[in-house]
Amino acid sequence: MEELRQQGSLVKAASRQLAQASGALRSEVLEVSAQMLLKRSQEVLSANGADIAEANVNESTPAALDRLTLTPARIQAMAEGLLAVAKLPDPVGEVVGGSIRPNGLAVSQVRVPLGVVGIIYENRPNVTTDAAGLCLRSGNAAYLRGSASAQRTNLVLVDILQNALEELGLPRHGVAIVADTSHEAAAAFMKLNGIIDCLIPRGGPSLIASMREHASVPYVIDGDGNCHIYVDASANLDMAEAIVVNAKTQRPGVCNAVETVLVHQAVATTFLPQIEKALKNVILVGDARALSHLSGATLATEEDFATEFLSLKLAIGVVRDVNAAIEHITRYSSGHSEAIITENLASAQQFVAKVDAAAVLVNASTRFIDGSELGLGAEIGISTQKLHARGPMGLEALTSQKWVVYGNGQVRG
Amino acid sequence: MEELRQQGSLVKAASRQLAQASGALRSEVLEVSAQMLLKRSQEVLSANGADIAEANVNESTPAALDRLTLTPARIQAMAEGLLAVAKLPDPVGEVVGGSIRPNGLAVSQVRVPLGVVGIIYENRPNVTTDAAGLCLRSGNAAYLRGSASAQRTNLVLVDILQNALEELGLPRHGVAIVADTSHEAAAAFMKLNGIIDCLIPRGGPSLIASMREHASVPYVIDGDGNCHIYVDASANLDMAEAIVVNAKTQRPGVCNAVETVLVHQAVATTFLPQIEKALKNVILVGDARALSHLSGATLATEEDFATEFLSLKLAIGVVRDVNAAIEHITRYSSGHSEAIITENLASAQQFVAKVDAAAVLVNASTRFIDGSELGLGAEIGISTQKLHARGPMGLEALTSQKWVVYGNGQVRG
Repeated sequence: MEELRQQGSLVKAASRQLAQASGALRSEVLEVSAQMLLKRSQEVLSANGADIAEANVNESTPAALDRLTLTPARIQAMAEGLLAVAKLPDPVGEVVGGSIRPNGLAVSQVRVPLGVVGIIYENRPNVTTDAAGLCLRSGNAAYLRGSASAQRTNLVLVDILQNALEELGLPRHGVAIVADTSHEAAAAFMKLNGIIDCLIPRGGPSLIASMREHASVPYVIDGDGNCHIYVDASANLDMAEAIVVNAKTQRPGVCNAVETVLVHQAVATTFLPQIEKALKNVILVGDARALSHLSGATLATEEDFATEFLSLKLAIGVVRDVNAAIEHITRYSSGHSEAIITENLASAQQFVAKVDAAAVLVNASTRFIDGSELGLGAEIGISTQKLHARGPMGLEALTSQKWVVYGNGQVRG
Repeated sequence: MEELRQQGSLVKAASRQLAQASGALRSEVLEVSAQMLLKRSQEVLSANGADIAEANVNESTPAALDRLTLTPARIQAMAEGLLAVAKLPDPVGEVVGGSIRPNGLAVSQVRVPLGVVGIIYENRPNVTTDAAGLCLRSGNAAYLRGSASAQRTNLVLVDILQNALEELGLPRHGVAIVADTSHEAAAAFMKLNGIIDCLIPRGGPSLIASMREHASVPYVIDGDGNCHIYVDASANLDMAEAIVVNAKTQRPGVCNAVETVLVHQAVATTFLPQIEKALKNVILVGDARALSHLSGATLATEEDFATEFLSLKLAIGVVRDVNAAIEHITRYSSGHSEAIITENLASAQQFVAKVDAAAVLVNASTRFIDGSELGLGAEIGISTQKLHARGPMGLEALTSQKWVVYGNGQVRG
């Protein structure tokens, strides 16, 4: 793994130069990258074709093949993504606080890049340009470790980004990808202390588990979303129906989709048949009380309530009151996004105060919890941990702060 | 280690109640704790006497004995510390940002407690009340793992804090200490995922190394301070002398003391004899160029430049210019506090921009980098990592944020 550390040292050195580059220049890198990406799209598609051919031989699932596949339209979207991030305000240099101390010291806290951001991700090639774009815009170097199955595609994409850096007089290693796609190299990557300042995983539970086991560098978990919607006794049931349908079916494979609906016992008789009708294409499992109001559901297991289905499957429970709903959520939530549908102010306030999650919503779909919907412009992931960043992570989450102190000879007494 | 997880569950449950308690009530806990501590000071001193007696048998060093020893004056200072923290503004509930989105969603980000803060520390009993006070003031439960050698003292202190919680109708387990003081229990403590939301070590390099090896819970490193002062060609040399003397000798055993002074070659002939005279009681080691201007110094090894001496020892190097100083610091710095002494604006700006540390200072002593000097009121530690908190950590560093979204039926299109 000596090779990895050597490459890492070049990425680290590049990060120091990027941290000193102007915001305008860093935006220009993304604009030039977007142009080059469109110009070299045939080359990208041909490398992607080779990756897909090999994936077919390895009998990948249709979902995995879809994630891997690039098309001219998808490449266009990647280029547009780079241009959109180029237009976001520069987070670097923002003064976030400060004061003159009684002894005359002028103290300020200034936003600075993290340095080297490591990203481990699965076989979506668009993550290569998305993640690198966000890292460069925020003055960081991006050190990527993609999936073996997308490596040919990723190598071309990284070459494009590196050429754009070079064209603007910045070091190629501002973006780099690990050549060795073995699991051993991934574990070694997670231990690059002194090189990687922040590691962000973009992947499923097995990747997260591997990080918890191997990583010794600082990391932020982009975790699961076992999200709940609680329908209160006072809820507007038509609103509740529209929100549940949206949160479950609009895009079921993403982390902010809903996985369990909890219904207050006072409205179960009315709401459960209503929602069953509205969710015709969804497999329903329910607790014993829910089943008495549902015709086509089967009994939910303990595991069902703990599972992020990421599919057209929904667990349903009937609860005594808002407190019982909060207890259920406290037990099963992954701390992502939790919603209450209610017309009662006290219930809303109690839910907002007591539910411990990255995001709590009142009378809105859990699907809104992502970077662009919340106004961050773009996101590098959604943190389900409490340190550093919680919820959607935009450019700010890719920065740290530095205390800057100007004096005129002060010493401590 | 089943016992640890059981105790941890109680601490977790207590943290949920503390998070809902008012700021006024949480301050009152500290006030009552301070009163009880003074009332029970004989009991604390007697437990401390037993700890000291055993430490004497175990042939502890004078420094270790001093850290362990409580006196009526030190207990008074601990009580005053609790009262001071009780007066700090409540960080919980602060709205740190927000907006109305184009679709009408009212979005805000609200500061919330982390939950359970784990603290692993050495044999200073004052850390027990200091850390617990900061945790409670910020709405967190404090889960403590102290040193075996201070356990009798700590048990009394924790009982006092627990009684104060109970007297105010809050759960005793808002503060708890691990009963088993073995290294195995410490390793298990670092793996209490789902219980500890943030682990903070207060100790030396061996504790940090153990955390990097064992910890699977999120943590913030309170790390070493291998701090530098660079004396530029344009420096006011009397100011430089006063600052170096202060930073080295005012309290040499702390992390923000200076360990290496780098001197521009143009002023080495003048400044080095001057500083040698001013640092009579300090052991000096220097690089070859420095030695030619110093009469009583020996040759510094590579290791000297990498060491946090924490004593009256100082390494000295002569450098070509500010760039060479920055290169030296980039190589050896632990990322704590770095200072430049200069009258030249360009040198100051270059140093501030390029040195990658929690704090950079111009014309001031590195000793100012702590929570009270920077206006945070008190500190739970000084982070040398870049994620979550960097530099002195006050009450804000003991909080996370929650996205709160109020809608009126919005669904995502």
